[in-house]
Amino acid sequence: MEKIRLIEVKEEILGDNRELADGLRKRLKGNGVFMMNLMSSPGSGKTSLVLRTIRALKNELKIGVIEGDIDSVVDAETVAKEGVPAVQLRTGGFCHLDATMIGKALDVMDLAALDFIIIENVGNLVCPAEFDTGAHLNAMILSVPEGDDKPLKYPLMFSLCNILLINKIDYLKYASDFNTDLVKERVRALNPGITIIEVSCKTGEGIDRWADWLKQRIREGRK
Amino acid sequence: MEKIRLIEVKEEILGDNRELADGLRKRLKGNGVFMMNLMSSPGSGKTSLVLRTIRALKNELKIGVIEGDIDSVVDAETVAKEGVPAVQLRTGGFCHLDATMIGKALDVMDLAALDFIIIENVGNLVCPAEFDTGAHLNAMILSVPEGDDKPLKYPLMFSLCNILLINKIDYLKYASDFNTDLVKERVRALNPGITIIEVSCKTGEGIDRWADWLKQRIREGRK
Repeated sequence: MEKIRLIEVKEEILGDNRELADGLRKRLKGNGVFMMNLMSSPGSGKTSLVLRTIRALKNELKIGVIEGDIDSVVDAETVAKEGVPAVQLRTGGFCHLDATMIGKALDVMDLAALDFIIIENVGNLVCPAEFDTGAHLNAMILSVPEGDDKPLKYPLMFSLCNILLINKIDYLKYASDFNTDLVKERVRALNPGITIIEVSCKTGEGIDRWADWLKQRIREGRK
Repeated sequence: MEKIRLIEVKEEILGDNRELADGLRKRLKGNGVFMMNLMSSPGSGKTSLVLRTIRALKNELKIGVIEGDIDSVVDAETVAKEGVPAVQLRTGGFCHLDATMIGKALDVMDLAALDFIIIENVGNLVCPAEFDTGAHLNAMILSVPEGDDKPLKYPLMFSLCNILLINKIDYLKYASDFNTDLVKERVRALNPGITIIEVSCKTGEGIDRWADWLKQRIREGRK
């Protein structure tokens, strides 16, 4: 085996983002609004989950959505068709949303008319993990076809989320490289308090359990 | 349908990266080394493709690998087991590799002893597309389970690559949301000159065609 040369490339430029995010959390709380930040790789099913969540909650809660995307407005259009107000943050190249950008979105939303805001972050397991958006809850999706090694490779993302949704479980019977028990073990080693729910946004399996969990968190958070 | 509010968030801070990258290309060329930058989402099969490529080329070419990763050295270890020298760039949070980082890796490599360097970029369809690494060739992987809408959502990545490998074609029979012809049409609308090859790193299908294409590019590039 050849020797590996390891080079550490460090970054210390997160600045005042955390402080700004704390300010947003207080501002939302003052308006009785609970905000969730949803993160995943591209193609894991964020938009499908947002739609499933809207349909499960919209009779009880007034929902708004902030969509982060590099270049398209496809997701915001999909959400707006559900009758939910949507703000599209077109990042023009940024690979994540930060508290400054979310603040700009909140400025154009009618917070007094909302109970719950969903942020659909940019599809990426890296940068979004580093920038606090000001949300009260961090949720992430890992889909079965991505493989079960992702907690080893993206530990920060798995460490900071309150809940992990394992999506596309309808693929489990075809996926030789996804051991659900191993994923749970790897995730809990990073984050012992995390809730893990298995879902399929395609078939609807597990969505009720997710919606019940989320409604309870929103109720507690808005108190 | 609700109205969508669109907010543009622009960034103009790529700095001197391109200039640095041009310098690296010249330095490599002076040493007769051809460098490829491989990009994709997390879980699309970059490391599997690197291993397949090493096995196909190592009898003819002296190969080195630069592995970009947020936090682990798993991929560099896997590569080093193939008897190929590997440099691990642990980015400590950065979601991409840039020309400065690649320059640091080249500094610890014996360029005179190499013909071909593979950069395995950080798993991400966003930031890596923006930062020129100094490579002579940009390659990307899109895997079937990610869905066929990715060219619409990550146009920059698809626009700047010389070749697209459609991986995990063994999943095609299960994937209702992946139309290969539609992907090719969407990609060619962004990038008419791109080469597209379908492969399965699991079964080996298409790898010969990829290796032949790559060897020709390396031969031409090292002249």
